[in-house]
Amino acid sequence: MTTLAERYLDCWNTRDAEARAEKLQQLFTPQVTYTDPLAVAAGLDELGALIGATHTQFPDFVFSLIGNEDAHHNLSRFTWGLGPTGAEPPVIGFDAVVTAEDGRIRAVAGFLDKVPAA
Amino acid sequence: MTTLAERYLDCWNTRDAEARAEKLQQLFTPQVTYTDPLAVAAGLDELGALIGATHTQFPDFVFSLIGNEDAHHNLSRFTWGLGPTGAEPPVIGFDAVVTAEDGRIRAVAGFLDKVPAA
Repeated sequence: MTTLAERYLDCWNTRDAEARAEKLQQLFTPQVTYTDPLAVAAGLDELGALIGATHTQFPDFVFSLIGNEDAHHNLSRFTWGLGPTGAEPPVIGFDAVVTAEDGRIRAVAGFLDKVPAA
Repeated sequence: MTTLAERYLDCWNTRDAEARAEKLQQLFTPQVTYTDPLAVAAGLDELGALIGATHTQFPDFVFSLIGNEDAHHNLSRFTWGLGPTGAEPPVIGFDAVVTAEDGRIRAVAGFLDKVPAA
Protein backbone atom coordinates (compact mmCIF):
# COMPACT_ATOMS: atom_id res chain seq x y z
CA MET A 1 0.00 0.00 0.00
CA THR A 2 1.64 3.19 -1.18
CA THR A 3 -0.04 6.51 -0.54
CA LEU A 4 -0.24 9.41 -2.96
CA ALA A 5 2.29 11.35 -0.90
CA GLU A 6 4.72 8.43 -0.92
CA ARG A 7 4.42 8.03 -4.69
CA TYR A 8 4.82 11.80 -5.07
CA LEU A 9 8.01 11.90 -3.02
CA ASP A 10 9.30 8.79 -4.81
CA CYS A 11 9.06 10.77 -8.08
CA TRP A 12 11.07 13.56 -6.48
CA ASN A 13 13.68 11.02 -5.37
CA THR A 14 14.04 9.33 -8.77
CA ARG A 15 17.31 10.51 -10.29
CA ASP A 16 17.23 8.55 -13.52
CA ALA A 17 15.45 10.83 -15.99
CA GLU A 18 13.85 8.03 -17.99
CA ALA A 19 12.55 6.15 -14.94
CA ARG A 20 11.31 9.45 -13.52
CA ALA A 21 9.44 10.36 -16.69
CA GLU A 22 7.62 7.03 -16.55
CA LYS A 23 6.64 7.53 -12.91
CA LEU A 24 5.52 11.09 -13.60
CA GLN A 25 3.30 9.91 -16.42
CA GLN A 26 1.62 7.44 -14.07
CA LEU A 27 1.14 9.85 -11.17
CA PHE A 28 0.40 13.21 -12.86
CA THR A 29 -1.95 14.34 -15.60
CA PRO A 30 -0.27 15.62 -18.80
CA GLN A 31 -1.40 19.21 -18.06
CA VAL A 32 -0.30 19.18 -14.40
CA THR A 33 0.54 22.56 -12.90
CA TYR A 34 3.17 22.83 -10.20
CA THR A 35 3.82 26.01 -8.21
CA ASP A 36 6.13 26.53 -5.25
CA PRO A 37 7.74 29.75 -3.96
CA LEU A 38 10.80 29.26 -6.18
CA ALA A 39 9.52 27.54 -9.31
CA VAL A 40 6.57 27.03 -11.61
CA ALA A 41 6.14 24.09 -13.98
CA ALA A 42 3.41 23.22 -16.48
CA GLY A 43 3.24 19.71 -17.87
CA LEU A 44 5.26 16.56 -17.28
CA ASP A 45 8.42 17.66 -19.10
CA GLU A 46 8.76 20.88 -17.13
CA LEU A 47 8.05 19.09 -13.85
CA GLY A 48 10.61 16.41 -14.67
CA ALA A 49 13.20 19.05 -15.53
CA LEU A 50 12.48 20.87 -12.27
CA ILE A 51 13.04 17.68 -10.29
CA GLY A 52 16.27 17.06 -12.20
CA ALA A 53 17.47 20.58 -11.38
CA THR A 54 16.75 19.93 -7.70
CA HIS A 55 18.98 16.83 -7.82
CA THR A 56 21.75 18.93 -9.35
CA GLN A 57 21.35 21.53 -6.63
CA PHE A 58 21.14 19.00 -3.77
CA PRO A 59 23.10 15.94 -4.98
CA ASP A 60 23.19 14.19 -1.58
CA PHE A 61 19.68 15.02 -0.35
CA VAL A 62 16.54 12.90 -0.36
CA PHE A 63 12.88 13.78 0.17
CA SER A 64 11.05 12.07 3.03
CA LEU A 65 7.52 12.29 4.38
CA ILE A 66 7.13 14.05 7.75
CA GLY A 67 4.06 13.17 9.77
CA ASN A 68 0.88 11.88 8.20
CA GLU A 69 -0.73 12.60 4.88
CA ASP A 70 -4.19 14.20 5.28
CA ALA A 71 -6.49 13.47 2.35
CA HIS A 72 -10.19 13.97 1.58
CA HIS A 73 -12.26 14.25 -1.61
CA ASN A 74 -9.77 15.04 -4.41
CA LEU A 75 -7.31 16.80 -2.09
CA SER A 76 -4.29 15.82 -0.05
CA ARG A 77 -1.78 17.72 2.09
CA PHE A 78 1.48 16.55 3.59
CA THR A 79 4.78 17.85 4.92
CA TRP A 80 8.17 16.65 3.69
CA GLY A 81 11.82 17.05 4.54
CA LEU A 82 14.77 17.40 2.18
CA GLY A 83 18.19 16.50 3.47
CA PRO A 84 20.81 13.78 3.91
CA THR A 85 19.40 10.32 4.59
CA GLY A 86 18.73 9.77 8.28
CA ALA A 87 19.64 13.32 9.34
CA GLU A 88 17.48 16.23 10.48
CA PRO A 89 16.36 17.77 7.16
CA PRO A 90 17.59 21.35 6.63
CA VAL A 91 14.66 22.01 4.29
CA ILE A 92 11.02 21.39 5.22
CA GLY A 93 8.16 21.97 2.83
CA PHE A 94 4.44 21.44 2.49
CA ASP A 95 2.38 20.47 -0.53
CA ALA A 96 -1.34 20.49 -1.18
CA VAL A 97 -2.25 18.44 -4.24
CA VAL A 98 -5.41 18.16 -6.30
CA THR A 99 -6.24 14.95 -8.16
CA ALA A 100 -8.22 14.58 -11.36
CA GLU A 101 -11.11 12.14 -11.79
CA ASP A 102 -8.69 9.40 -12.84
CA GLY A 103 -6.80 9.77 -9.54
CA ARG A 104 -3.72 11.39 -11.04
CA ILE A 105 -2.40 14.68 -9.64
CA ARG A 106 -3.46 17.68 -11.72
CA ALA A 107 -2.20 20.53 -9.51
CA VAL A 108 0.43 21.00 -6.82
CA ALA A 109 0.53 24.00 -4.47
CA GLY A 110 3.89 23.98 -2.69
CA PHE A 111 5.07 26.04 0.27
CA LEU A 112 8.26 26.16 2.32
CA ASP A 113 8.24 25.87 6.12
CA LYS A 114 12.00 25.85 6.77
CA VAL A 115 14.93 26.86 4.59
CA PRO A 116 18.60 27.06 5.56
CA ALA A 117 19.89 30.47 6.62
CA ALA A 118 21.63 32.18 3.71
CA MET B 1 -4.33 47.12 3.99
CA THR B 2 -6.44 43.99 4.14
CA THR B 3 -4.93 40.68 3.09
CA LEU B 4 -6.63 37.99 1.08
CA ALA B 5 -6.95 35.79 4.18
CA GLU B 6 -8.54 38.64 6.14
CA ARG B 7 -11.05 39.31 3.37
CA TYR B 8 -11.73 35.59 3.11
CA LEU B 9 -12.44 35.24 6.84
CA ASP B 10 -14.52 38.42 6.78
CA CYS B 11 -16.79 36.71 4.21
CA TRP B 12 -17.12 33.73 6.54
CA ASN B 13 -18.01 36.10 9.39
CA THR B 14 -20.67 38.03 7.45
CA ARG B 15 -24.07 36.86 8.70
CA ASP B 16 -26.28 39.07 6.56
CA ALA B 17 -26.93 37.04 3.41
CA GLU B 18 -27.16 40.04 1.09
CA ALA B 19 -24.01 41.70 2.38
CA ARG B 20 -22.23 38.36 2.22
CA ALA B 21 -23.28 37.76 -1.38
CA GLU B 22 -21.80 41.12 -2.36
CA LYS B 23 -18.51 40.38 -0.62
CA LEU B 24 -18.36 36.91 -2.16
CA GLN B 25 -18.82 38.39 -5.63
CA GLN B 26 -15.90 40.71 -5.05
CA LEU B 27 -13.55 38.10 -3.59
CA PHE B 28 -14.38 34.92 -5.53
CA THR B 29 -14.79 34.07 -9.20
CA PRO B 30 -18.29 32.96 -10.27
CA GLN B 31 -17.09 29.38 -10.83
CA VAL B 32 -15.20 29.11 -7.55
CA THR B 33 -14.80 25.60 -6.17
CA TYR B 34 -14.67 25.02 -2.42
CA THR B 35 -13.76 21.69 -0.83
CA ASP B 36 -13.23 20.88 2.84
CA PRO B 37 -13.51 17.52 4.65
CA LEU B 38 -17.21 18.07 5.38
CA ALA B 39 -18.54 20.08 2.44
CA VAL B 40 -18.15 20.85 -1.24
CA ALA B 41 -19.49 23.97 -2.96
CA ALA B 42 -19.40 25.11 -6.58
CA GLY B 43 -20.17 28.72 -7.39
CA LEU B 44 -21.03 31.75 -5.28
CA ASP B 45 -24.56 30.68 -4.32
CA GLU B 46 -23.47 27.31 -2.97
CA LEU B 47 -20.56 28.87 -1.12
CA GLY B 48 -22.82 31.54 0.40
CA ALA B 49 -25.31 28.87 1.49
CA LEU B 50 -22.51 26.83 3.06
CA ILE B 51 -21.35 29.85 5.06
CA GLY B 52 -24.94 30.51 6.14
CA ALA B 53 -25.29 26.90 7.30
CA THR B 54 -22.12 27.28 9.35
CA HIS B 55 -23.64 30.30 11.12
CA THR B 56 -26.73 28.25 11.91
CA GLN B 57 -24.54 25.46 13.30
CA PHE B 58 -22.26 27.78 15.30
CA PRO B 59 -24.36 30.87 16.10
CA ASP B 60 -21.91 32.34 18.62
CA PHE B 61 -18.64 31.54 16.89
CA VAL B 62 -16.41 33.76 14.76
CA PHE B 63 -13.54 32.95 12.40
CA SER B 64 -10.15 34.51 13.16
CA LEU B 65 -6.76 34.29 11.51
CA ILE B 66 -4.11 32.30 13.41
CA GLY B 67 -0.51 33.13 12.62
CA ASN B 68 0.59 34.63 9.34
CA GLU B 69 -0.74 34.21 5.83
CA ASP B 70 1.87 32.71 3.50
CA ALA B 71 1.37 33.74 -0.13
CA HIS B 72 3.35 33.40 -3.38
CA HIS B 73 2.43 33.44 -7.08
CA ASN B 74 -1.33 32.78 -7.25
CA LEU B 75 -1.39 30.76 -4.01
CA SER B 76 -1.95 31.49 -0.36
CA ARG B 77 -2.19 29.37 2.78
CA PHE B 78 -3.32 30.29 6.25
CA THR B 79 -4.67 28.80 9.48
CA TRP B 80 -7.84 29.97 11.18
CA GLY B 81 -9.74 29.40 14.39
CA LEU B 82 -13.49 29.13 14.87
CA GLY B 83 -14.90 29.84 18.31
CA PRO B 84 -16.28 32.41 20.72
CA THR B 85 -14.71 35.88 20.40
CA GLY B 86 -11.56 36.15 22.48
CA ALA B 87 -11.53 32.52 23.61
CA GLU B 88 -9.31 29.61 22.61
CA PRO B 89 -11.00 28.33 19.41
CA PRO B 90 -12.35 24.76 19.67
CA VAL B 91 -12.05 24.38 15.89
CA ILE B 92 -8.85 25.05 13.93
CA GLY B 93 -8.63 24.75 10.19
CA PHE B 94 -6.29 25.42 7.30
CA ASP B 95 -7.05 26.68 3.80
CA ALA B 96 -4.95 26.83 0.66
CA VAL B 97 -6.49 29.13 -1.94
CA VAL B 98 -5.78 29.68 -5.64
CA THR B 99 -6.45 33.04 -7.25
CA ALA B 100 -7.40 33.71 -10.87
CA GLU B 101 -5.64 36.27 -13.07
CA ASP B 102 -7.99 39.00 -11.81
CA GLY B 103 -6.89 38.31 -8.23
CA ARG B 104 -10.16 36.71 -7.14
CA ILE B 105 -10.16 33.29 -5.48
CA ARG B 106 -11.04 30.48 -7.89
CA ALA B 107 -10.39 27.44 -5.68
CA VAL B 108 -10.27 26.69 -1.95
CA ALA B 109 -8.74 23.53 -0.50
CA GLY B 110 -9.76 23.30 3.15
CA PHE B 111 -8.49 20.99 5.88
CA LEU B 112 -9.21 20.60 9.59
CA ASP B 113 -6.45 20.61 12.21
CA LYS B 114 -8.55 20.46 15.37
CA VAL B 115 -12.18 19.51 15.93
CA PRO B 116 -14.01 19.13 19.25
CA ALA B 117 -14.22 15.62 20.66
CA ALA B 118 -17.58 14.03 19.82
